[in-house]
Amino acid sequence: MRHFISVNQLTVEDIYSILETAENYRTHEVKLNKQLFVANLFFEPSTRTKMSFVVAQKKLGLEILDFHSDSSSVIKGESLYDTAKTFESIGSDLLIVRHQSDSWFEELDDRVSVPIINAGAGKEEHPTQCMLDLLTIYQEYGCIKGLKVVIVGDIKHSRVARSNAFALRKLGAIVYLSAAPGFEDDELDFPYISIDEAVETCDVVMLLRIQHERHLHKAETSDYLELYGLTKERERKMKEQAIIMHPAPINRGVEIDTDLVECGRSRIFKQMENGVFVRMAIMMNVLNEWGIITNENNFKKRKALAFIK
Amino acid sequence: MRHFISVNQLTVEDIYSILETAENYRTHEVKLNKQLFVANLFFEPSTRTKMSFVVAQKKLGLEILDFHSDSSSVIKGESLYDTAKTFESIGSDLLIVRHQSDSWFEELDDRVSVPIINAGAGKEEHPTQCMLDLLTIYQEYGCIKGLKVVIVGDIKHSRVARSNAFALRKLGAIVYLSAAPGFEDDELDFPYISIDEAVETCDVVMLLRIQHERHLHKAETSDYLELYGLTKERERKMKEQAIIMHPAPINRGVEIDTDLVECGRSRIFKQMENGVFVRMAIMMNVLNEWGIITNENNFKKRKALAFIK
Amino acid sequence: MRHFISVNQLTVEDIYSILETAENYRTHEVKLNKQLFVANLFFEPSTRTKMSFVVAQKKLGLEILDFHSDSSSVIKGESLYDTAKTFESIGSDLLIVRHQSDSWFEELDDRVSVPIINAGAGKEEHPTQCMLDLLTIYQEYGCIKGLKVVIVGDIKHSRVARSNAFALRKLGAIVYLSAAPGFEDDELDFPYISIDEAVETCDVVMLLRIQHERHLHKAETSDYLELYGLTKERERKMKEQAIIMHPAPINRGVEIDTDLVECGRSRIFKQMENGVFVRMAIMMNVLNEWGIITNENNFKKRKALAFIK
Repeated sequence: MRHFISVNQLTVEDIYSILETAENYRTHEVKLNKQLFVANLFFEPSTRTKMSFVVAQKKLGLEILDFHSDSSSVIKGESLYDTAKTFESIGSDLLIVRHQSDSWFEELDDRVSVPIINAGAGKEEHPTQCMLDLLTIYQEYGCIKGLKVVIVGDIKHSRVARSNAFALRKLGAIVYLSAAPGFEDDELDFPYISIDEAVETCDVVMLLRIQHERHLHKAETSDYLELYGLTKERERKMKEQAIIMHPAPINRGVEIDTDLVECGRSRIFKQMENGVFVRMAIMMNVLNEWGIITNENNFKKRKALAFIK
Repeated sequence: MRHFISVNQLTVEDIYSILETAENYRTHEVKLNKQLFVANLFFEPSTRTKMSFVVAQKKLGLEILDFHSDSSSVIKGESLYDTAKTFESIGSDLLIVRHQSDSWFEELDDRVSVPIINAGAGKEEHPTQCMLDLLTIYQEYGCIKGLKVVIVGDIKHSRVARSNAFALRKLGAIVYLSAAPGFEDDELDFPYISIDEAVETCDVVMLLRIQHERHLHKAETSDYLELYGLTKERERKMKEQAIIMHPAPINRGVEIDTDLVECGRSRIFKQMENGVFVRMAIMMNVLNEWGIITNENNFKKRKALAFIK
Repeated sequence: MRHFISVNQLTVEDIYSILETAENYRTHEVKLNKQLFVANLFFEPSTRTKMSFVVAQKKLGLEILDFHSDSSSVIKGESLYDTAKTFESIGSDLLIVRHQSDSWFEELDDRVSVPIINAGAGKEEHPTQCMLDLLTIYQEYGCIKGLKVVIVGDIKHSRVARSNAFALRKLGAIVYLSAAPGFEDDELDFPYISIDEAVETCDVVMLLRIQHERHLHKAETSDYLELYGLTKERERKMKEQAIIMHPAPINRGVEIDTDLVECGRSRIFKQMENGVFVRMAIMMNVLNEWGIITNENNFKKRKALAFIK
């Protein structure tokens, strides 16, 4: 019985099984045959993650409990734990949690009796984003092993960087990081390369959002694109088949030239589309592992051999 | 392939076809036979417009994506365009947008691949409100051509005034404006009359909300009703069959005496009721024009000849 | 035709009928066979009450209109009455209202044509919380008559205290109050006892939330538990079968030692679970009394004789 908290807890086969299920859901409808409740507990702002969870939940036929922390008892000081237990008590079969704390799940782990899916934990983990990124890369290349992937931007403050770097390495990709001074993270054991080297050598250029309102002065922002971002000039030096990814929201003109957001190499909106199917697969996987639904509920945990290359 | 942005884009027949469909939905159920997603993107506060869209959507069986700009990536600086593309990417079949900009739709127009319905644009357009107002007048008189309609209040800042004045003229009504000094709009080519002349001559007295927190001092507010608003004395001078309309929210005691809000002539709550059916008709019309649903989905674009008088 | 505003309006038989229906809904599914709309109008923050209403509504198959006062026309000054009439006009069959005013329902009472359920009124009434508390006690003891119940805490500012004290007395319980100096309410005609006497004599120890951000200095907060709250030492003196209740949110370490929140005597999370079924029963009761649904809709108003002991 596991919560879905980190990509590190997944085996290679677990990962490919979820990706294959997600691909399957793109073309095949799946509906639960009983009424189940899911609570979306987002303590941080979100458009994409929350709304793609909602689309995924409605496609599966889940009943959604939409929690707004700013009109809840959280403003009276209620803790995450007590909030989660409340949703468990009133009948939630599944909790989706995003919280600003790096390790909020430690507070819940063994004390909550319904499955929890991590929709973002401080600057540490964002495993559902990671899974949709993996699917996007897999769709492009038909494999992940051996690919050169660079993660570019504010590595230090990015939960996406952490989740993706470890998962990609586990799947056999060669992972590089590229960061402006001050954005490196010394604790991550991956090689750093310059953006100029990155664009010429990598199969996937994965940009991160610069949280410039926090980290940069206005003057620095305008220089950032030229020094460390993906300019049109750099894009022209990318390998023929190489793709551009970004978890969004995008700071147009900061980490990427605005004209590249929808260029031929960009998979940015494809990533969002993939988010729906990956989240369907993750929810079904968790509900299945906890015995809340059974295989008869249209979910098959496949030996994902065909997918592992 | 058109978005539903302005009443100016509609022909007389388009308008009556929507009104007739709306009337039909009042008495006949209509349900989509497939799962479609609509995103309600309201960047400005709303009770009536948003909630009547929601009722209309649930009556049609649409799945609703409820966007809250204050807990979304908009607070991280994401643009309307990127927000709209996100909802398109995650599977929205239809976008409903209200935004404070007068011309937000120019940013989206040819760049978004799903239909958009304008639920309010700055001080320029509010076409769904206009359609429900037209339906309310039509229900009353069985025609619109030849009716005298006065729009009273803060003309300068009202998107309702703009949308309604042009649509009513297109349908053959004789439109007057009535405004306190400073509330006139010189760019609108309609005759101004005093409120006292208006009540005695018009078949429809359409009041607007005075956004007094913005435009009036407190002292002025208390005088406003007597000088420019609909007092009980003025109501007694109205033509026998004449009706009172107001898009709400109402400033009771400012633009209208509080006792008149639910008087026999008032159609204010009827307008709200009509909003549901008109919005159902508009959504079905747009989904139909875009080929997202077909005529088999219970929607018939009628030759609305019986309705055009 | 009555709104569900106060427990005082209910007879003993009314109360037991609702409790029995709630118990029945725990084990038997009930679904409306037509599309009905309920509007949740919460003008104050809520997690438990609102979310358990939502679960109850979805279990019944009601369509939910989710009102957010902070993104509504309320911020333009719209009154509760005009808001309620709006929801009536657009098709709500039922209104659930929580508002900070002690007597908001007087503004609505005879002027709104759809049933209203009180989900919290200032510091005066919280009848649905009361009903779930009664169910929790009934489940424990199989009766309410003759039980000794103490309500402990900020009596002066608590709507739960008021609703529960009167209902428990009506059902034959012996009700005591226990409050720190300044938290007593002189208008309530019930005997006060100390927390030490309370734990030794009562069958039910019903704690209230201390709204300490309003009423206590920080220094006082740390003393409060020792002087007036439920410490582990006091818990050990409770009668063998006695239970602990709390409407939540809990101030852990203020009114109750944090280790007692989930101890064997605690029914705190059971109360939340009961909230769903009680609210289902109340909504069905009201819809039935108003003729909006009929007995064929799976609701039987029983002679709850077996339940009245």
